Amino acid sequence: MAKNDRIVLREVTPEVIAAAKALMRGADHAALATLEPDTGQPLASRVGLATLDDGTPLIIASHLAAHSGALDADPRCSLLIGTVGKGEPLTHPRIMLVCRAEVIAAGSEAAAAGRLRYLATHPKAAIYVDLPDFRFFRLAVERASYNAGFGRAYALEGEMLVG
Amino acid sequence: MAKNDRIVLREVTPEVIAAAKALMRGADHAALATLEPDTGQPLASRVGLATLDDGTPLIIASHLAAHSGALDADPRCSLLIGTVGKGEPLTHPRIMLVCRAEVIAAGSEAAAAGRLRYLATHPKAAIYVDLPDFRFFRLAVERASYNAGFGRAYALEGEMLVG
Repeated sequence: MAKNDRIVLREVTPEVIAAAKALMRGADHAALATLEPDTGQPLASRVGLATLDDGTPLIIASHLAAHSGALDADPRCSLLIGTVGKGEPLTHPRIMLVCRAEVIAAGSEAAAAGRLRYLATHPKAAIYVDLPDFRFFRLAVERASYNAGFGRAYALEGEMLVG
Repeated sequence: MAKNDRIVLREVTPEVIAAAKALMRGADHAALATLEPDTGQPLASRVGLATLDDGTPLIIASHLAAHSGALDADPRCSLLIGTVGKGEPLTHPRIMLVCRAEVIAAGSEAAAAGRLRYLATHPKAAIYVDLPDFRFFRLAVERASYNAGFGRAYALEGEMLVG
């Protein structure tokens, strides 16, 4: 996360918030940064992504995935959302979310709602969403750094992006 | 990083290594996981990417970027490389590299070589590579997790991928 005294930040307008929310809600994958248990080494892995009704990011993870055990040991994580098109990769918008992961209890109403949301974005996940080895996590957004293109950076609070 | 006792890993063949190296060397961007100074929070940010002659990943970072100060405070980091095409995002190959970042001293022969390699991949970076605010980092690869598609996972050592 950028420190306010080190980075040139632009004013956060309603249009900026709307664009950041659209980026989050339109994504079907992200890079997830977690902390490796025991070593504390940061790890970057790919996750399939959906959002809950309020815009909170939702992932599903097998116990076999490195990030599954990492989130159990330390729920602090970060999502990088945004795809890269043609030309210079840093000219394409992306958002870094600083999150705290929470397991959605299997069999709960929240899990049923998350399952529907996830399948709406990832219909082919039907082959594994109900396996006992898989769990849904909601990634509560604490703060974010939105970059609308090279040098166009904004610092956002989590409550601006969800709800 | 997957623990060997928790994940189903496939045998690493020369073909697997060649495919992983091609993925690394063909990439022009990646997600970089670093540790936020003071908090230890993992952060996921986008970086432009090139490789040195031996295949070692090379990035350039402004002091304004959050990951620049993060790598100064703790050189441990991770790169996620691989783009997502059509269909389910988890069916597309990607590699997670566990790395240690090293600043390439400005004015050194290594910096001159890195500059040429970076500009070959990112010609438009010519407008900022020589600014005093920017530094090159080589990301020495310690180990990797290569995923050639859903459920096709391989654990690799750094020396298999560089040199």
